[in-house]
Amino acid sequence: MHIGMKSLAKHVDIGYVGELDMARNKHPEETVNLILAVATRLFMEKGYEHTSIQDIINELGGLSKGAIYHHFKSKEDILVAVTNRMTEVSNKMLEEIRDRKGLNGKEKLKIIFKESLGRSDMDYIFTVAPDLGNNPRLLFSMFRDTVDDVVPLYILPIIQQGISDGSIRTDYPTELAELVALAANIWTNPMVFNNTIEEYYRKLMVFKQMLDGFGLDIVDEELLGRMRELAAIYLETKNK
Amino acid sequence: MHIGMKSLAKHVDIGYVGELDMARNKHPEETVNLILAVATRLFMEKGYEHTSIQDIINELGGLSKGAIYHHFKSKEDILVAVTNRMTEVSNKMLEEIRDRKGLNGKEKLKIIFKESLGRSDMDYIFTVAPDLGNNPRLLFSMFRDTVDDVVPLYILPIIQQGISDGSIRTDYPTELAELVALAANIWTNPMVFNNTIEEYYRKLMVFKQMLDGFGLDIVDEELLGRMRELAAIYLETKNK
Repeated sequence: MHIGMKSLAKHVDIGYVGELDMARNKHPEETVNLILAVATRLFMEKGYEHTSIQDIINELGGLSKGAIYHHFKSKEDILVAVTNRMTEVSNKMLEEIRDRKGLNGKEKLKIIFKESLGRSDMDYIFTVAPDLGNNPRLLFSMFRDTVDDVVPLYILPIIQQGISDGSIRTDYPTELAELVALAANIWTNPMVFNNTIEEYYRKLMVFKQMLDGFGLDIVDEELLGRMRELAAIYLETKNK
Repeated sequence: MHIGMKSLAKHVDIGYVGELDMARNKHPEETVNLILAVATRLFMEKGYEHTSIQDIINELGGLSKGAIYHHFKSKEDILVAVTNRMTEVSNKMLEEIRDRKGLNGKEKLKIIFKESLGRSDMDYIFTVAPDLGNNPRLLFSMFRDTVDDVVPLYILPIIQQGISDGSIRTDYPTELAELVALAANIWTNPMVFNNTIEEYYRKLMVFKQMLDGFGLDIVDEELLGRMRELAAIYLETKNK
């Protein structure tokens, strides 16, 4: 799972557009966009681990190795930038749901989980699966972003609304928001744990049981079906 | 909370005893022991953040700065070694409880939580409180050790026993073990989150509620009382 990660790049250095580049490239942003578009496609097609910087260069239509390294220090930096763009999309979604009228808090939480799994780029997340469990820097970013941004900006306000409208009952909204968001973004995140489809599905069942225990009966059969689907895509690529 | 962390040092480089040292010191292990004993005491007295390498050297009876840096590259490395020693103690405890006769699985889990909070060095953990939430390296070590060691070696076997003897009911023992251990070792860990006593206590209440939801009614009033006590010690030092 993956509840709106904001600015993964915040805690890490990603390529920037410096003076040198400005001199030789009038549209550095377009260059970055091109690199990210190609990288995203290749990560999806071949998986992150099996994509080399050279693979990306080969499809950039004459862009030099130096040009790509000017923007990104490493393949990991490209991944961070790609992931960061995805989280921007995700945050827009969280913001929109948080502010939507005519829904109670519990309904909003349910929609968030549903949308988080229904996003078009969720397939990407499952496909790329860069095994962040072995990457302290990215894992740490995910951890801090969940705690510092996702919880206070989106999940907590929704739980607070749920308390006001009677749809959610807890004496500890902040702590509940934190535990649920960390479990979703870290523990049931296919990018962090290298689980088999079987293990992944089992985690979701335990996650659902945890939510039920808090009176948050928001994981329904439709949601579980979607999870199985994503897990299947992820494994298919992984085993290529 | 903190369920038997094994070998925090496994994923990080800690000082080692090289040839140079062997030449000038016949008992490098004793030197390391001395450094760690002094560091532990100072971390407890002054807090980790307020203890400098120089403070440690000042109490080492003539040991040079070079000698300490020969064994430990940084103050953080000393903390890792100190923490690693504590986890060895903790693992002995987990092993002993896991193998104890005459208890069912749920009783063993309850004793683990009780002992984890009752250990003499838990005061140390709360006192030192080095804010690992800002330290990717240590956070990552804690994460990996919980997943790779604490869960498979101790928590899972106990849950499996509980299933056999009927004291624990779950279709997903591995996943339940992982979620509980991560919540205890990362989320309710005062070294990872810089919580106030109020927030910390609230987390424990949510943790208890989570366990209850899984039918693990193992956090009793005595345990909660101990948690309050530890949180108080931690804050006292922090505010010095």
